[in-house]
Amino acid sequence: MKVIVDFCLVPIGVGVSVSKYIAECEIILKDAGLKTQLHAYGTNIEGEWDDVFGAVKRCHERVHEMGAPRITTTLKVGTRTDRVQTMDDKVKSVQEKLLGV
Amino acid sequence: MKVIVDFCLVPIGVGVSVSKYIAECEIILKDAGLKTQLHAYGTNIEGEWDDVFGAVKRCHERVHEMGAPRITTTLKVGTRTDRVQTMDDKVKSVQEKLLGV
Amino acid sequence: MKVIVDFCLVPIGVGVSVSKYIAECEIILKDAGLKTQLHAYGTNIEGEWDDVFGAVKRCHERVHEMGAPRITTTLKVGTRTDRVQTMDDKVKSVQEKLLGV
Amino acid sequence: MKVIVDFCLVPIGVGVSVSKYIAECEIILKDAGLKTQLHAYGTNIEGEWDDVFGAVKRCHERVHEMGAPRITTTLKVGTRTDRVQTMDDKVKSVQEKLLGV
Repeated sequence: MKVIVDFCLVPIGVGVSVSKYIAECEIILKDAGLKTQLHAYGTNIEGEWDDVFGAVKRCHERVHEMGAPRITTTLKVGTRTDRVQTMDDKVKSVQEKLLGV
Repeated sequence: MKVIVDFCLVPIGVGVSVSKYIAECEIILKDAGLKTQLHAYGTNIEGEWDDVFGAVKRCHERVHEMGAPRITTTLKVGTRTDRVQTMDDKVKSVQEKLLGV
Repeated sequence: MKVIVDFCLVPIGVGVSVSKYIAECEIILKDAGLKTQLHAYGTNIEGEWDDVFGAVKRCHERVHEMGAPRITTTLKVGTRTDRVQTMDDKVKSVQEKLLGV
Repeated sequence: MKVIVDFCLVPIGVGVSVSKYIAECEIILKDAGLKTQLHAYGTNIEGEWDDVFGAVKRCHERVHEMGAPRITTTLKVGTRTDRVQTMDDKVKSVQEKLLGV
């Protein structure tokens, strides 16, 4: 089952600067061979369900190892059976409507 | 790794009434032996990471089988290494502050 | 426009214990006359759009005043025009399906 | 109070194709003079609290007018008092860590 996910991990108890933890997660996602797109409030991920959620679990494990005692993550998870749709397709579909295509 | 999750699955393309899909997910979560608490905008789940996410995957599979062509799910996922904390502990901790305990 | 919201505020940069900030938000929501239901990963709120979002803004302002330099909040926001539905209705609707009503 | 928001509106009861509703919201956000960035699972928005939430409310009103009987929206809402930070700053901060800057 293919899935498109929006992933936003927030380490708690390590101060206000969290970008080094997010960068570490980006590396884990890339190492898992997943297609990703970083944005200002999370990372879009595209892949097979088990690959994506395996990588998300490793992010939690790794961020705890880095010293964060507590983590809260927000995920949006999209699946569909009617057709194949990529992250690019989703953005393009809205942009075409805006251009009147 | 223990996890506390807030799970909100939304089937798309099956009309406005979605409670029968949510009820089916409640059964899947219970059958997985997970502790759950239904609320007005999702379900809190407590358990081991793999058990919880295995059940969430089965919910997506089952809701598609029931005829929903598209699903968008929102998850909040909390882990901590500093101490053990249950769903009840979290609510109690806030309520004690409110009571001035 | 009536709205049902799930509200989860996370102060960042104040350590791992956040319940006193959540308790303060509960008071703000109650003072705004909103119907609320605390759960293990947030608070359900029912009310008029402007009342609810005015209270959410005051929560951010107050938690900053209490010393949190950074806040990340997750909201789920539900509106419908086909019929009136309360938080209790939503839970009951799922529970009835589970009971085979 | 400046805010960075991640906004994901899902119309329910209008079938599986929702891009025309999202496109309409993009126009509303632009008309409000807000800085936005569309991604595969939502739209990042940067602006003053009242401007952003005023526009989000208009999106709900407009999508209902377009015929959607039910809407569920997910928002992530970030505020900070320790320093000014834009959407670009957030992405850059992670990218610099990845490049070892």
